Amino acid sequence: MQLEFLGTGSGQPSKFRNVTSIALRLLDERNAVWLFDVGEATQHQILKTTIRPRKVEKIFISHLHGDHIFGLPGFLSSRSFQGANKNESLTIYGPKGVKEFVQTALRVSETRLSYPVVYIEIVEGVIFEDKTFRVIAAKMRHRIETWGYRIEEKDHPGELLVDKLRHEGVPSGPIFGQLKAGKKVTLSDGRRLDGHDYIGAAQKGRVVTFILDTRPNDNIGILAHHADVLVHESTYGAGDEEAKLAKSHAHSTSVNAAMAAHNAQVDKLVLTHLSARYIGPMVKTLITDVRRIFPNTIVARDFDVIDIPFKKEV
Amino acid sequence: MQLEFLGTGSGQPSKFRNVTSIALRLLDERNAVWLFDVGEATQHQILKTTIRPRKVEKIFISHLHGDHIFGLPGFLSSRSFQGANKNESLTIYGPKGVKEFVQTALRVSETRLSYPVVYIEIVEGVIFEDKTFRVIAAKMRHRIETWGYRIEEKDHPGELLVDKLRHEGVPSGPIFGQLKAGKKVTLSDGRRLDGHDYIGAAQKGRVVTFILDTRPNDNIGILAHHADVLVHESTYGAGDEEAKLAKSHAHSTSVNAAMAAHNAQVDKLVLTHLSARYIGPMVKTLITDVRRIFPNTIVARDFDVIDIPFKKEV
Ligand SMILES: [Zn+2]
Ligand SMILES: [Zn+2]
Repeated sequence: MQLEFLGTGSGQPSKFRNVTSIALRLLDERNAVWLFDVGEATQHQILKTTIRPRKVEKIFISHLHGDHIFGLPGFLSSRSFQGANKNESLTIYGPKGVKEFVQTALRVSETRLSYPVVYIEIVEGVIFEDKTFRVIAAKMRHRIETWGYRIEEKDHPGELLVDKLRHEGVPSGPIFGQLKAGKKVTLSDGRRLDGHDYIGAAQKGRVVTFILDTRPNDNIGILAHHADVLVHESTYGAGDEEAKLAKSHAHSTSVNAAMAAHNAQVDKLVLTHLSARYIGPMVKTLITDVRRIFPNTIVARDFDVIDIPFKKEV
Repeated sequence: MQLEFLGTGSGQPSKFRNVTSIALRLLDERNAVWLFDVGEATQHQILKTTIRPRKVEKIFISHLHGDHIFGLPGFLSSRSFQGANKNESLTIYGPKGVKEFVQTALRVSETRLSYPVVYIEIVEGVIFEDKTFRVIAAKMRHRIETWGYRIEEKDHPGELLVDKLRHEGVPSGPIFGQLKAGKKVTLSDGRRLDGHDYIGAAQKGRVVTFILDTRPNDNIGILAHHADVLVHESTYGAGDEEAKLAKSHAHSTSVNAAMAAHNAQVDKLVLTHLSARYIGPMVKTLITDVRRIFPNTIVARDFDVIDIPFKKEV
């Protein structure tokens, strides 16, 4: 499980930061990639990574401002061009208008996609759940309907300790499956084994929270509670002028993000969606300021890959 | 007057060629830039040039395929973000659907532009004319309604030969204006001058023709007749297989473009909209093949700037 930042700027592209898109790479977990927002030229950014558009199975849209959605028609078209087939459907979660925008673009351009697209209009609560993941959405406070997302991986059961079994001379075969299921078995030589003695520690599922384009609000704490990684917008840095700008544009400062990370007791905070004013020494200052409040913070740059390792046993 | 190629690929962006957009730089002529097609990430390409979005006064759309229009909403939004004001209106010429596409994108994203946009649905013939330029549109043959454009600059009257007048000791003043208007004047020292003797040669207006995404057709010859530069799509190169591909996708080969350039007696042919298959040695082969038919041909690369000098006296 890794995060790959495809665009870390706000409002409009700059030479150093494209507009917003973040990939959650779940290749080991489900042979898939999920995208969070698809600003213009996200497909161009993807060209410079190892991400294959066909592997993108879900797209979550925070809100419909142009810098978060204008890359959708091109990304969907190229995914088709590159041969995604009718079994490789793609689901887009977002506010109501995303379907109208995409469908108008595809209809006007006479683009017929080679795979199905499913549109799911967000309502608060659990918006997706299967055997391995659950996704929870909650409303943010921006100038337009905006959603934050909490991605919960389900716990991984412990692995069968095959080396230990081999070491004790237990022959492989159907017995391994029974032990993995936690059963008691009797070997042909009379030994009795308890599966629980041969299963490693279960791994607690990881949690990643995406908070884009919002004023501070109580739902951030709910979505980010004890997350492994909190990805939080930080259009502005610390300071009185910045706080005023953030308020007037319905955005957050790095201080807002750090306070949220602290209160929710997350492990790591990753700031993104920076105003183009933050380049060079100003980014350094922003980082220094925010680490006073929440030390384990980084500021994402385009193409940064952040690994999210297992670290808790159940 | 220069052409600046912002995207020279076809279908989808590649590492080396973005999707289609071409700027006609008319800074000396009218302090403006015109764009021909606006594929996704055209605004990103513009960031790497000296073009200022506020200077873009007209956009001409050849057809509504995604690789020619998906950059419009982002370009228009950023032009607003960068402070274009209500006097800096922008006119978009194109097939009917372009207005619906752009307006849906702006409405859904709640984008309010700071300047007016005028949409002009193309009909065959002269679609724009003022004191300095005329634009003529004619239908192409593609899978969807497609237009070719001929840009005609009007002739430049000759300049007053100020150096010659100074050399002959003619004092500057209102007399210069009368001479420039071609009048006869008498100086205070009794000399009689004829304005016609002091006006340089008039310059013939230049002609640039844009032919994108089409099968060969008679309108190309009409639009390109004696053009200074013919910009022509060349999705494919020479060869039987390429000719078949071009036919089945309703595109042109380099051979089609060269024949059109030859028949229309243009001065220079610039090929663009190349399939991503043409990289490295394959581009060299494409160029060699096409120059056998029309020697003054170049294949545009992203960010190529091609000057179009005056070269004919009226
Ligand atoms: Zn934003
Ligand atoms: Zn095309």
